[in-house]
Amino acid sequence: MCACRFTFTVFWDPCYRFQPPGGDIVPCALLIPGSCDSVLPNTTTTMKAIIQRVTKASVTVGEEQISSIGRGLCVLLGISVEDTQRDAEYMVRKILNLRLFEDEHGRAWSKSVMERDFEVLCVSQFTLQCILKGNKPDFHSAMPAELAQPFYDSMLENMRSTHKPELIKDGKFGARMQVHIQNDGPVTIELTSPTGPTDPKQLSKQEKQQQRKEKTRSKGPSESGREKGAQRSRQDPNASSGAEGDVSSEREP
Amino acid sequence: MCACRFTFTVFWDPCYRFQPPGGDIVPCALLIPGSCDSVLPNTTTTMKAIIQRVTKASVTVGEEQISSIGRGLCVLLGISVEDTQRDAEYMVRKILNLRLFEDEHGRAWSKSVMERDFEVLCVSQFTLQCILKGNKPDFHSAMPAELAQPFYDSMLENMRSTHKPELIKDGKFGARMQVHIQNDGPVTIELTSPTGPTDPKQLSKQEKQQQRKEKTRSKGPSESGREKGAQRSRQDPNASSGAEGDVSSEREP
Repeated sequence: MCACRFTFTVFWDPCYRFQPPGGDIVPCALLIPGSCDSVLPNTTTTMKAIIQRVTKASVTVGEEQISSIGRGLCVLLGISVEDTQRDAEYMVRKILNLRLFEDEHGRAWSKSVMERDFEVLCVSQFTLQCILKGNKPDFHSAMPAELAQPFYDSMLENMRSTHKPELIKDGKFGARMQVHIQNDGPVTIELTSPTGPTDPKQLSKQEKQQQRKEKTRSKGPSESGREKGAQRSRQDPNASSGAEGDVSSEREP
Repeated sequence: MCACRFTFTVFWDPCYRFQPPGGDIVPCALLIPGSCDSVLPNTTTTMKAIIQRVTKASVTVGEEQISSIGRGLCVLLGISVEDTQRDAEYMVRKILNLRLFEDEHGRAWSKSVMERDFEVLCVSQFTLQCILKGNKPDFHSAMPAELAQPFYDSMLENMRSTHKPELIKDGKFGARMQVHIQNDGPVTIELTSPTGPTDPKQLSKQEKQQQRKEKTRSKGPSESGREKGAQRSRQDPNASSGAEGDVSSEREP
């Protein structure tokens, strides 16, 4: 056994999870205090969504336009072989609640697609489950079509019942499509589902804690914070092509 | 010290790297035999590219179209605070050499954008460097604009000199744009740069080994492999919206 302090002994598995001797597999992020959503390791076995904020978007199959939306989100969704109902629920909740839109005062990153009553165009995209072998993509980690289709359909249903049925649009599963995306900003977010057999209660608790912190902050912003926000809105509040991660109001104090 | 076999002792740092006692920090992927590019853990401090195969794409700023391409790739590029020249070189090499196009016989995943002499529209996109705090995006890990702009420009230069200058197009760094993307398939790949202070020689060696393996395989495919490929091409060889990771010819034997 180890005698040294500040070390721990682990088994290693290729999915980047820790397996403590004699215990359950634990995703890495749970071992790090204060870790949050996107710090979760991005293995090829998590669900992945590429979320693009759009002015408009549509899908054509052959010559026929089968779907279209105005302002909202175009979501390309890659389902992996290991995804579960819990991953699906997490992704739907995040997609609909991510604050990617400005509020009525033009303050960026304030409102979600649901809060603004905007639309969502969701398209299944197995190529997101890609492992590169040299320069050749390999898609073994994508969920096979016969399983992925009902799984994907249930996610759409969940979106429709959580938001508004008429505001959730779809591509045509398995067809060759042209997806016309007018990316507004551009604003593109990559979202991955939390991996591994974690305790849902624990995950939910972590999320609630974070949301509480956020609310506390947004209720009582400092004067300087308000000033910074005002300064930024006089510039271009929505430009997002440069690396403007240093824009103060985008940051929490 | 440990007496047990099949375990190893590590220090843990929040960037998902291993720090062996008394040694250098080693990225996780190097510890796994046969690990490859996209198995590298996706922390928020790697460069990220969302690569969409397009029939056409363009960028408008206000009413003016400032850039457009025909068939090729639209690349949204998110540079992080920790990215180095090595990350930039890796990403440029991968973007230009990824096999996302069919060959002259319609065989999918065979040719790169360079091999087909297609175009690339590259747009800087700091929002890819996103950490979610609850539902609010935070962009602290994006490289600040004053550093990101020359870094990004040098990547474009690298692309131009590696491919053909007239086939590499650009957005307008830092401006609010509308990026019009006609995603063909759709085909979308998420690419991240390898993280951490690894030995470039070792990484390059791994890549070369993989490419050699790939060449060996593509020179001598089995008869059954050929048959499978032929079967698939009679269906829709390019449909990629369903989770068709189980399509045989997409897989290496």
